[in-house]
Amino acid sequence: MLDSSTLKTLARAATDTLKRGLDQHVRLAVTGLSQAGKTAFITSLTDQLLHGTPRHLPFFPVQAEGRYLGAKEMPQPHPLVPRFRYRDNLAMLQADQPGWAPSTQGISELRLHLKYQPDTGIRGFIKEPVTLVLDIVDYPGEWLLDLGMLDLDYGQWSAQQQKLLAQKPRADLAASWCQDATAYCAQGQSDEVQTEQLAERFAALLQDFRASLGLYYLQPGRFLLPGELKGAPVLAFFPWQGAPDDSPLYRQLAKVFEQYKSEVVKRFYRDHFASMDRQVVLVDTLAALNHSRAAFLDLQLALTEVLKSFQYGQSGLLSRLFSPRIDKVLFAATQADRLTPDQRPALTSLIGELIGPALEPIRFAGIDVGVETLAAVCTTQAGKGQLDGQTLPCLKGRLADGRQVTLFPGDVPASLPAADFWQRQGFAFPGFAPPLGLRSPLAHLRMDKALAFLLGDKML
Amino acid sequence: MLDSSTLKTLARAATDTLKRGLDQHVRLAVTGLSQAGKTAFITSLTDQLLHGTPRHLPFFPVQAEGRYLGAKEMPQPHPLVPRFRYRDNLAMLQADQPGWAPSTQGISELRLHLKYQPDTGIRGFIKEPVTLVLDIVDYPGEWLLDLGMLDLDYGQWSAQQQKLLAQKPRADLAASWCQDATAYCAQGQSDEVQTEQLAERFAALLQDFRASLGLYYLQPGRFLLPGELKGAPVLAFFPWQGAPDDSPLYRQLAKVFEQYKSEVVKRFYRDHFASMDRQVVLVDTLAALNHSRAAFLDLQLALTEVLKSFQYGQSGLLSRLFSPRIDKVLFAATQADRLTPDQRPALTSLIGELIGPALEPIRFAGIDVGVETLAAVCTTQAGKGQLDGQTLPCLKGRLADGRQVTLFPGDVPASLPAADFWQRQGFAFPGFAPPLGLRSPLAHLRMDKALAFLLGDKML
Repeated sequence: MLDSSTLKTLARAATDTLKRGLDQHVRLAVTGLSQAGKTAFITSLTDQLLHGTPRHLPFFPVQAEGRYLGAKEMPQPHPLVPRFRYRDNLAMLQADQPGWAPSTQGISELRLHLKYQPDTGIRGFIKEPVTLVLDIVDYPGEWLLDLGMLDLDYGQWSAQQQKLLAQKPRADLAASWCQDATAYCAQGQSDEVQTEQLAERFAALLQDFRASLGLYYLQPGRFLLPGELKGAPVLAFFPWQGAPDDSPLYRQLAKVFEQYKSEVVKRFYRDHFASMDRQVVLVDTLAALNHSRAAFLDLQLALTEVLKSFQYGQSGLLSRLFSPRIDKVLFAATQADRLTPDQRPALTSLIGELIGPALEPIRFAGIDVGVETLAAVCTTQAGKGQLDGQTLPCLKGRLADGRQVTLFPGDVPASLPAADFWQRQGFAFPGFAPPLGLRSPLAHLRMDKALAFLLGDKML
Repeated sequence: MLDSSTLKTLARAATDTLKRGLDQHVRLAVTGLSQAGKTAFITSLTDQLLHGTPRHLPFFPVQAEGRYLGAKEMPQPHPLVPRFRYRDNLAMLQADQPGWAPSTQGISELRLHLKYQPDTGIRGFIKEPVTLVLDIVDYPGEWLLDLGMLDLDYGQWSAQQQKLLAQKPRADLAASWCQDATAYCAQGQSDEVQTEQLAERFAALLQDFRASLGLYYLQPGRFLLPGELKGAPVLAFFPWQGAPDDSPLYRQLAKVFEQYKSEVVKRFYRDHFASMDRQVVLVDTLAALNHSRAAFLDLQLALTEVLKSFQYGQSGLLSRLFSPRIDKVLFAATQADRLTPDQRPALTSLIGELIGPALEPIRFAGIDVGVETLAAVCTTQAGKGQLDGQTLPCLKGRLADGRQVTLFPGDVPASLPAADFWQRQGFAFPGFAPPLGLRSPLAHLRMDKALAFLLGDKML
């Protein structure tokens, strides 16, 4: 017969087993199109999970319901992947002279254990807290755009790129490169050094598209962020200029294009993406609006391409390649603190319209797509001010040079602006520096909404 | 019956088959201990093979005998490995303001096809030229030193490092780090952030050993050149300080040490080293002599460690791990052009003595070890000058700031100097800039001897 101490031990063991079965693991991928504020977003997300309170995160149910017990930073499990530097980034935000952390050049990763009291259903029987293991994986948005290349052969990709290069806004900057590449393609002989030079000039052109024109739809992504592949033969290609042919040069470029797809793009997604559960795509819509109509339309093009990659029903691209299990994708317009509160719904509406047409097939495939407007770190205080005799909503904040300013940033269009919008509209959404004396949990806008979408269903 | 045209075709086919069987492939690894001039060496080696003449390379038999037909740069076959930039480096040497190319931060590779007329034996029957495929692989010397870690467990490696850190010349610089690491090890609890901070401070200490003390024996190599591993957990370790124990911290550090060995060191050697046929280790003996006695002794220690790695008879470390097929290793003292010609034999003798004791077991294992003194690019002109009324050998060259100077660099000791050598000796071997108007084939010292050792037997 079992004594009561043994029974207790057995009961505890059974509970533990059940609990372990319920303990969950979420791998959350975070990326963003060019300067969208990935580092700030992940730093804030981590800070909210480590230091948030019910009052600070009212729309994150597990917090609001008082069931959240806390979080702990854990060693991340991949020895060859850099750790995301939450504490260093936070220290920069909270320094005497606060600043934004530098953007990352590759992948990095962070693990948190989130402890909470289960709420309903079978978990309701368990008195002991449950742990959700959360891995946050940060990777460059430039690489996300490469997914679109996987579905194309070299001829198709070249045709797509030729079309882009021949049109505004790219045509002017691209003219000289196109002329030289066309001449080289026409002669058809493959020369390693010439190919490499044209590939490097193409990479410089992509950089220029981004820097001068504010563009987003830039392929191949590794041309912008090569890392250890700098100078490697797998980057020695460029879109064919002219009609496809059977020349040695065409075959060489097509071969390297296929190597890029299999050795770089597929390898990255196989190693990292296939295990992802959820994806955040950050978008700095205001920067595009600020820049130009061309930048804004290019953002839309890039987002549509990114969304295509997520159209993975039974026959979708990603499904065929990686059997991914992503069931939620959040598109978040960042830096909403650069707007007065009355304008924020317009921003949400705008990003919804930007990606709207591409959403149907993704939702049809059973993926939950969220659209949110947020500020990872709120840098402004909203108020009212007098401008030209009118009382208008305004923002107070600190500019990058340290000056405190009061601004009237103007209206955000709630839907895709017409072509003349950029001529008549006099608006500017300046970037702000982090405020002085920022403490944890970091001031934010709607990070709790993002958390609710990304983790709410896993913390019931 | 076969007609004569068919017979000719068959004869040609037979010859081709025989010829293909004789075409050979050599993978030549080039590395060097800290600033030894790898980039200049490979640039010059390539230049000599592409543009050399019998008169320019009298000690390279295939040239001297008039059987060398020329070389051609070919695409290197590894898509993910950067191409060695021979032409860019050469352009820097031959610019109006000539300079040395920047040192590489990782691996790079170059392929040449060398065409020659066979000489003797079975090849003598073949009238058609034969091609030798030469791959030159450039990798940081810092990584070569890591090989020695493979034979040690964490306790053994820590003991070795503790001893080094406690002795001159390291002890003074290391004191503060050792104190903090000892305290942390003593408490035995593993904390990710503290571990990482101590690992980063250890990396900074290694950098300081190199920069301030001119030392060479620095492990782990990736702490000095992390590349894409910067910030990765696999670099979050350091040598244990104190007596080994069974604490969580000791186990954690030992685990990461083993990960470093298997995921970083072994992976690199498995991917790249196992296929090598020949190895060049470049050593800037003069820089060590110039610096200090401590630097010189540390160079000897590092070389002895490197040589241990090559002791791969049946039971050697490399043999067990990678079944390598390296059959020749060349140790080359570089920048011999910083000496007057009368002093060059002393340099050869000195490097021979530096590595001498470790050579026996390597030669016994059937590996041919060569020792050479050379200048990849000769930057000086030797002559005679008057100093204090005496006629002495002197050098004319261009300093880094562009000034033309005449120098009396002094005597090189032909064997290991005694401790007081650095007090009484008044010598200096300054670094020279490349001369103005340098043309191909590049002026050199004894590069033909190096070629003869490395490739002579493959081009008979």
